[in-house]
Amino acid sequence: MSYTTTDLIDLKDFYQKQLLKNTIPFWFPRSIDAVHGGYLLMRNQTGELIDDDKSVWFQGRTAWLLSTLYNTIEPKQEWLNGAKSGIDFINKHCFDTDGRMFFHVTRDGSPIRKRRYYFSETFAVIAMSAYAKASGDEKVAEQARHLFGECIKYATTPGLLEPKYTAVRPAKGIGSPMIMINTAQQIRETIGDPRCDEWITKWIAEIENDFVKHDIECVMEQVAPDGSIIDHIDGRTLNPGHAIEGAWFILHEAKYRNNDPHLIELGCKMLDYMWERGWDKEHGGILYFLDVYGNPVQEYWQDMKFWWPHNEVIIATLLAYTMTGNEKYAKWHKMIHDYSYSKFHDKENGEWFGYLHRDGSVAQTAKGNLYKGPFHLPRQEWYCLQLLNETLNQ
Amino acid sequence: MSYTTTDLIDLKDFYQKQLLKNTIPFWFPRSIDAVHGGYLLMRNQTGELIDDDKSVWFQGRTAWLLSTLYNTIEPKQEWLNGAKSGIDFINKHCFDTDGRMFFHVTRDGSPIRKRRYYFSETFAVIAMSAYAKASGDEKVAEQARHLFGECIKYATTPGLLEPKYTAVRPAKGIGSPMIMINTAQQIRETIGDPRCDEWITKWIAEIENDFVKHDIECVMEQVAPDGSIIDHIDGRTLNPGHAIEGAWFILHEAKYRNNDPHLIELGCKMLDYMWERGWDKEHGGILYFLDVYGNPVQEYWQDMKFWWPHNEVIIATLLAYTMTGNEKYAKWHKMIHDYSYSKFHDKENGEWFGYLHRDGSVAQTAKGNLYKGPFHLPRQEWYCLQLLNETLNQ
Repeated sequence: MSYTTTDLIDLKDFYQKQLLKNTIPFWFPRSIDAVHGGYLLMRNQTGELIDDDKSVWFQGRTAWLLSTLYNTIEPKQEWLNGAKSGIDFINKHCFDTDGRMFFHVTRDGSPIRKRRYYFSETFAVIAMSAYAKASGDEKVAEQARHLFGECIKYATTPGLLEPKYTAVRPAKGIGSPMIMINTAQQIRETIGDPRCDEWITKWIAEIENDFVKHDIECVMEQVAPDGSIIDHIDGRTLNPGHAIEGAWFILHEAKYRNNDPHLIELGCKMLDYMWERGWDKEHGGILYFLDVYGNPVQEYWQDMKFWWPHNEVIIATLLAYTMTGNEKYAKWHKMIHDYSYSKFHDKENGEWFGYLHRDGSVAQTAKGNLYKGPFHLPRQEWYCLQLLNETLNQ
Repeated sequence: MSYTTTDLIDLKDFYQKQLLKNTIPFWFPRSIDAVHGGYLLMRNQTGELIDDDKSVWFQGRTAWLLSTLYNTIEPKQEWLNGAKSGIDFINKHCFDTDGRMFFHVTRDGSPIRKRRYYFSETFAVIAMSAYAKASGDEKVAEQARHLFGECIKYATTPGLLEPKYTAVRPAKGIGSPMIMINTAQQIRETIGDPRCDEWITKWIAEIENDFVKHDIECVMEQVAPDGSIIDHIDGRTLNPGHAIEGAWFILHEAKYRNNDPHLIELGCKMLDYMWERGWDKEHGGILYFLDVYGNPVQEYWQDMKFWWPHNEVIIATLLAYTMTGNEKYAKWHKMIHDYSYSKFHDKENGEWFGYLHRDGSVAQTAKGNLYKGPFHLPRQEWYCLQLLNETLNQ
């Protein structure tokens, strides 16, 4: 099958309507904390608050979303004000005295937990750069660039952040180059930064050389520093939706580089390999974890369906289709789109459920918690809308 | 319903047969590492090794099991030799230079990970004390007592181990007094230690005063230091199987204290409250996590059925029945026993599956991994066998 122009227009209208009439209204304006600033996002199925704590990841991700809507959809004052609320809360409450950021704070910004990862920082970078573009605030732009430099340091200086494991069996994850590619792309597209192109090239090369295994048609989640497979449970564990997120970051870069054919091929191969492994042929949807050699993984919920991998695969398949015209990707996009909007979307209350059992039944009804909030779903709907607008206007 | 003497004899025969003809032969002798010592326990459904790493918890738990079989079932030389292999491996490889223990090591004992919890230490204490009794090795007994003293320090000195959370919202878990009650009971029953009775009394009082909530008929998993409920997602999360494990530790103590009526009442109330909340009325079995007020919990796999809570509930209901004669407990015991041995037990290959979906289908087939191995299931079969022998001989 293929998509006709009418199909693409229908899809564009669908994503636009979902984003602006369903997903965004679920979260806003009620999630803006008028008392302490930032966002109150831990909500149940109908949108009631179940916890007033704040995930620092989500303070950044939400400020990014609101700034991005302002920058690319419509310069609505309420979106800019909402974004400012998050940026101010982050600056007032989310940094420790060592310059690193917390992970979890109370409603009024007292720190509950700090982690050894630097994701809070990368999400603050994309929030600050998008907000700096929206507001024109040069001080926030400088802060974004400074923090981006810190993230580069964390990502490339082994041992700078307290390690979780000893040095006996060194390993590295695909998550670090992936998140840094996306962070660099975001800063480049909003406020610009001369470091981005070179670093993106390095991180893509690292993924290509060390994580993508053409001989076994697989993208590893974790490898030894030299790229070899670590033949233990953790080293063998694959995360298809995550690898496919990496695939679309690379396809996005290919497009930025005038449809660089090598990057298109790399992104498509990553998507092909992990679709083949991750698509659940029995029940539909993307399985969460798999062992590269078919052994049982350590995790017990490995066959659940999580919302966010589906968001990533919807983007990746549509991007691959619009860039290559390969009908296979239209077919896959339709499969993942239909599965997702029939299983995850809460038609009664808006937004998506986060967690389904393997058979597609809802396992847990929270719309927001420490790890779920207004990011993957609105990003997918926003990205697909932008992409289809662009494709249809060509 | 009630159990007749014939029923109890049948049950005793069943547990004995399962333990000695099914569970133990799944693991031994193949899991003893003849090259490096210790145990190779990460095994798939049929018993093949899927990872030769070693969980330090399971080096201790396995040495405890083999020593206990030697002490209480039959003084088989192979069990004593097997236990010695684990004790030697622990002493050679599992301690860091600061006296604390690692969590995860390679086959030859190189450390992979150390955690901020002291469970590796408590499992080493029960292993060493049971092995000291079996072997008569007074040096190992002294080591067990020393390490028990260290565990008391870790359990009762706030801030001694690196905390996971800041001091903004102090909390404590029921896991710490629970594991210490069991550790003290084990050391008391094998090599003896004058500190045990007093500490056990204190830890039970802490559970009773701070974690058991009669007004809402509930046992909390986590509370504030003063025992108040922390009304945030983590603070509200219940773990029924864990609380019921706590119930049988207290019933066990009641029996040691000449059927202390107050402790019997406390243990039975804990069991009653958490059976009511945890038993899945739709599919049977014990749900893993619940929110005390019925909100969605943070975890997404909260409605899965794990093997170990079922082991704990089998023990707790049988113990409650034999101690009180209350027919309700015979009924509950039959329900949990029948569910468990029909759903978890792998009739083809022996041992139990660890992880079922809510509907009872198998989610993951590993028999051993970092958290599962020869402990909860053989402990349950061994405990029930001992208990029924004792009950029938009265």
